[in-house]
Amino acid sequence: MKTVNFIFGIHNHQPVGNFDFVIEDAFLKSYLPFIEVVEEFPNLHISFHFSGCLLEWLEDNHPDYLDRIARLVKRGNIEIISGGFFEPVLAMIPDRDKIGQIKMLNDYIKKRFNYEAKGLWLTERVWEPGLAKPIAEAGIEYITVDDYHFLGAGKNEDELIGSFITEEQGYPLNIFPINQNLRYAIPFKDPNETIEYLRKFVSEDGTNAIVMADDGEKFGVWPGTYDVVFKKNWLRYFFRKLDENSDWLKTTTFKKYHSKVPPIGRIYLPTASYFEMSEWSLPGDVGEKFETHIHKFEDEGIFDEVKPFFKGGMWRNFLYIYDESNWMQKRMQHLSNRVDVFNETKLTTKTKKIYDEAKYHMWKSSCNCTYWHGIFGGLYLPHLRHAVYQELIMCEKLMDELEGKKHFALEIYDLDLDGHDEIMVTNYDIQAVISPFKGGIIEELVLRNKKFNLLNTLKRYKESYHKKVQLAGKEKDDSGSIHDLVMAKEEGLEEYLNYDFHPRKMLTDHFIKETVTLEQFQKTEYYEDSDFLDGEYDVEYNRKSKKVVLKRDGWVNWQKFFVKKEICFRKDHIEINYLLKNTGDVKNSFRFGPEFNFSMLGGNTPDRYYFSRDKIIKMPALISKEIEKNICSLGVASDFDGFKVEIKSNELTEFWRFPIETVSLSESGFEKVYQSSVIMPLYQLNLNPGEETNLKIRINFSEK
Amino acid sequence: MKTVNFIFGIHNHQPVGNFDFVIEDAFLKSYLPFIEVVEEFPNLHISFHFSGCLLEWLEDNHPDYLDRIARLVKRGNIEIISGGFFEPVLAMIPDRDKIGQIKMLNDYIKKRFNYEAKGLWLTERVWEPGLAKPIAEAGIEYITVDDYHFLGAGKNEDELIGSFITEEQGYPLNIFPINQNLRYAIPFKDPNETIEYLRKFVSEDGTNAIVMADDGEKFGVWPGTYDVVFKKNWLRYFFRKLDENSDWLKTTTFKKYHSKVPPIGRIYLPTASYFEMSEWSLPGDVGEKFETHIHKFEDEGIFDEVKPFFKGGMWRNFLYIYDESNWMQKRMQHLSNRVDVFNETKLTTKTKKIYDEAKYHMWKSSCNCTYWHGIFGGLYLPHLRHAVYQELIMCEKLMDELEGKKHFALEIYDLDLDGHDEIMVTNYDIQAVISPFKGGIIEELVLRNKKFNLLNTLKRYKESYHKKVQLAGKEKDDSGSIHDLVMAKEEGLEEYLNYDFHPRKMLTDHFIKETVTLEQFQKTEYYEDSDFLDGEYDVEYNRKSKKVVLKRDGWVNWQKFFVKKEICFRKDHIEINYLLKNTGDVKNSFRFGPEFNFSMLGGNTPDRYYFSRDKIIKMPALISKEIEKNICSLGVASDFDGFKVEIKSNELTEFWRFPIETVSLSESGFEKVYQSSVIMPLYQLNLNPGEETNLKIRINFSEK
Repeated sequence: MKTVNFIFGIHNHQPVGNFDFVIEDAFLKSYLPFIEVVEEFPNLHISFHFSGCLLEWLEDNHPDYLDRIARLVKRGNIEIISGGFFEPVLAMIPDRDKIGQIKMLNDYIKKRFNYEAKGLWLTERVWEPGLAKPIAEAGIEYITVDDYHFLGAGKNEDELIGSFITEEQGYPLNIFPINQNLRYAIPFKDPNETIEYLRKFVSEDGTNAIVMADDGEKFGVWPGTYDVVFKKNWLRYFFRKLDENSDWLKTTTFKKYHSKVPPIGRIYLPTASYFEMSEWSLPGDVGEKFETHIHKFEDEGIFDEVKPFFKGGMWRNFLYIYDESNWMQKRMQHLSNRVDVFNETKLTTKTKKIYDEAKYHMWKSSCNCTYWHGIFGGLYLPHLRHAVYQELIMCEKLMDELEGKKHFALEIYDLDLDGHDEIMVTNYDIQAVISPFKGGIIEELVLRNKKFNLLNTLKRYKESYHKKVQLAGKEKDDSGSIHDLVMAKEEGLEEYLNYDFHPRKMLTDHFIKETVTLEQFQKTEYYEDSDFLDGEYDVEYNRKSKKVVLKRDGWVNWQKFFVKKEICFRKDHIEINYLLKNTGDVKNSFRFGPEFNFSMLGGNTPDRYYFSRDKIIKMPALISKEIEKNICSLGVASDFDGFKVEIKSNELTEFWRFPIETVSLSESGFEKVYQSSVIMPLYQLNLNPGEETNLKIRINFSEK
Repeated sequence: MKTVNFIFGIHNHQPVGNFDFVIEDAFLKSYLPFIEVVEEFPNLHISFHFSGCLLEWLEDNHPDYLDRIARLVKRGNIEIISGGFFEPVLAMIPDRDKIGQIKMLNDYIKKRFNYEAKGLWLTERVWEPGLAKPIAEAGIEYITVDDYHFLGAGKNEDELIGSFITEEQGYPLNIFPINQNLRYAIPFKDPNETIEYLRKFVSEDGTNAIVMADDGEKFGVWPGTYDVVFKKNWLRYFFRKLDENSDWLKTTTFKKYHSKVPPIGRIYLPTASYFEMSEWSLPGDVGEKFETHIHKFEDEGIFDEVKPFFKGGMWRNFLYIYDESNWMQKRMQHLSNRVDVFNETKLTTKTKKIYDEAKYHMWKSSCNCTYWHGIFGGLYLPHLRHAVYQELIMCEKLMDELEGKKHFALEIYDLDLDGHDEIMVTNYDIQAVISPFKGGIIEELVLRNKKFNLLNTLKRYKESYHKKVQLAGKEKDDSGSIHDLVMAKEEGLEEYLNYDFHPRKMLTDHFIKETVTLEQFQKTEYYEDSDFLDGEYDVEYNRKSKKVVLKRDGWVNWQKFFVKKEICFRKDHIEINYLLKNTGDVKNSFRFGPEFNFSMLGGNTPDRYYFSRDKIIKMPALISKEIEKNICSLGVASDFDGFKVEIKSNELTEFWRFPIETVSLSESGFEKVYQSSVIMPLYQLNLNPGEETNLKIRINFSEK
């Protein structure tokens, strides 16, 4: 009898830093009920991948669930698929960490489920040709990616009926194509349609294999699916149909199939992920063009033909598009280098423990979700970024301990690999990274004992979907109703579509005209008459006096100008001494504002607020904007995280304060997200030729 | 004054194995006169890359030319760019060889020109993200690729006015985009147009850089260019214009610019080469579709907008499309592993010399030109493939010497990384690779003392441009004239568009009906009533008796059938014993023909011919086809390479002989290329159920 193999794979994952209640919800709606249905079918074969971070959570919260999985493995129903333990996009971490994280999950699977994992779930199916080698070196024999990858490599759809073999530098790896038709049909169409579709692939020798593999959250967590899949028994019915047709329709796992049937051909795949990712990974304006072409092809009815050749960006584009994503990734990579330098064999029992812990946190910081943005929040979610920084900070502290770092250290690295050195200063519990090239700013400011990066900020970037937000706003004005296709969590989002041309960090040196209002400044609807904002500063430093001095000759109001800023590190504060000098030929009048950002994680909660000296500015909260006049102090406090930070000026002045809020896409529609609070003391200055002035500003840190 | 930097790069290369007279012609028409013009301009800055293989040729044939280059370097006019020594596509060789070959050229440049090369010419601009690391590890700081690579990464054309920084696993590399407008304008348009184009990019700070870098052969070797560039003085005039505008138009080198101006941003580039390569690297039928879309976009006038997103294949596709390219590349990779296993430090002076020589030949075999096919012959040229095999064979012999291999060895490897083991037998001067999985064929057969792979054959593949050849044929019939766009070196090429469904190797087991003619067989216009042609054979071997035994149960004429073939290695011949058995229920009648191919390098030369016993069949030559009846011997001889090989049957039979000829694109148009000569003894068999028969065939090797 003619038969066909059907391989069904499920990938379950929750990001590092996600809220407990969200994961619990996914557990109850999807992970648990899915397994309950599987238990009813003793002849079913199915492949499961759980990310390591989800496994850790399950171990802590529902260890019995993992026992049930183990029983299904023992019963022979389930293959367990490995992967990078913390679900990193493999292309963004060094090879040694790819191998290390995969082996970590292999080991866990062996220990917990008594199973030899030979397959790997490729995070977000982000493929690069170089990956075959480290994946194979980690003991993996096969992976699965989308059929789109194969079509993009010049294969025809009808050839995708088994596995293919690729290699890198002689290391072989088998790759299974995921069938898109099934990915769209399951669990949305009648199971009988899928059965009939599979029937097309039967053959005499029975070696054909059709693969469906996708997120487990599609079964219960995605809107409306819990009802269909479990309440209305879609899944149970589907499995029953598979069972009924088991004479010709063989459910199998990747592993069983791989052990029996050789690859049907060689393949080399280009840099690719699923089609949508190729769109998301383009910069906003280019993404808009990409989408326009797609719509045209769709209108002409030729999109399916064009699609194999129509390719957007690659995943690593996120690293050049979003400075903040790059910063986290390069910090992780830099820590990986520090970890790597330590030769494991030379460690004592005690230092080995610290070393392992440091590596654990470094690996944990690589969980992919925070480093990119598609239709889920991702990079736009401050709490996810915060979780990454927490891991980075914990790793860094442990490595400092291993390396015997003193309470003060000043180090020079090109931390973000932009071709320019940064200066990292560690002073007791404060750690600051200064970037002379990018306007002499403080780019990272960490409260080490709080594991808190105050500069976990995000610039307001243009996203291709902002066009839809604007359209929705307009249509509302015209017709009073929001466009069907656009779901916005609140109205008036189009008002928040402002874009930043400079990083939202600290010591960004603004020179602004008298006429510029706070409103204009916040919306970046003004022109800066100066080149200090993103100019390169010369840098000197003095370890003894714990001082970094930044100097720059530039121009303000088309006149030559000179700025010097000294950043002096003290135990519980940072002193900043500005020297501003008119080096031009005529009098120069302007307002000078050094900008400070604070990413407080919550903008509109009662436990985060502004204060001036000891006076708490509770209402409005951190998302309010205001000009505070004639004061010499303005700060932010977080009762939740237990700290306050105050910006103190040596003279009475005007302080501007306002939030940076982004508009981004989430699974439930467009939403406004609080990113940081800006505090900017503003000084009115009139300088004659040759005249200079000094400004003293302190950043005071204290516990709450 | 506002200024702009203009970086002009020239890449000169000739393939390993190219004919001397061809290289001499390129020298006289391009390499020499170009430098003569450069010498006239003491203020000009220009960057040059010469591949190592071309440098070796120049050193042997025109050492004074290299002295002149050295003087220009000393005078400060020229930057010398490095690269993989033998111009390999970097993605197709192991990292250690990438680094080794780049350092080899760095060292040569240092020694010969007293110059520290910091730039690299990326062979065929074939980029993969993983390359940044090994390139940086070889001491390289920057490369240049097409603007198409950057557009494909989501950059806009107007951003491409300097260098960008990328990284892999923390290893940074700067990348310059090549301006396509200039690449099309130089040397084809009026130099004044280029000057005016460059003027658009002047800026106050003078940091913009526009790059033109391309093949040196465009200046003199390409059709018509010698006349324009040198006789009509295009180049001299262009350089004079650059000189005249030197107040604002600064000619510079990559190196000088790189040392002064930092990168303007970060970038990650996808797998890419220039646009045309993305088309060439698609399989024939998919390439046809790709082209159809391009024509549509061009007709609609939207091609330029779509192009950044419209991407064909990647270079490594050639390895899955052409089995013969893959075979050479995997053989090279396998030898690289063998070389790598030897730890250099443990070598004595004597063995070090052998080791270095082996590595040299292995590296030399990686010259890219032979491994792919675009609009030049490339893989389709037997003499280029032969040159690659010569290097591979020399490396292999040296490694055998180092490893102390005996006169007989039988080794099992998955040589071509298709997931199935091959058997490599070395017996005195004969080396054979047997592939049980692919029909139990001999896939490589080397005369080691002649450095000659008799199975340097090529299947007839479908190419996307064959459509044009067919069209030309048709139009000729209709109107008597060949279509303007198609240049064919001879008429009637469409008759040769036959495609092979099996490899053109040895011991391909054909079972063909009585009615199939030689003509049909040659054109593969027949149906094979059997599954032995590409079936998987079981394999056993006996080292003592130097024997490999292949067995298979399959079917012939829809009846069960069994084939056993013993391949026995003797000092100057190979004995093949076939056992054919009817395992079905009814009588089975058929013709059995084991196919032998010989790639003799020349099909129509007086020094290569067929012979039977000692009777020479001089006319017609190896490209003739014929049925020779009632003989027991047919062979091929090459007076040129000094060997003869005879296929000897133990009984009088019929021999078919005919050439395999391909139709491919070369720089001067479509051409027919002789690839191999087929010799096939044909046996008429009638077997009752359970009946078996034995056939003995010998392959005799002898010197000429």
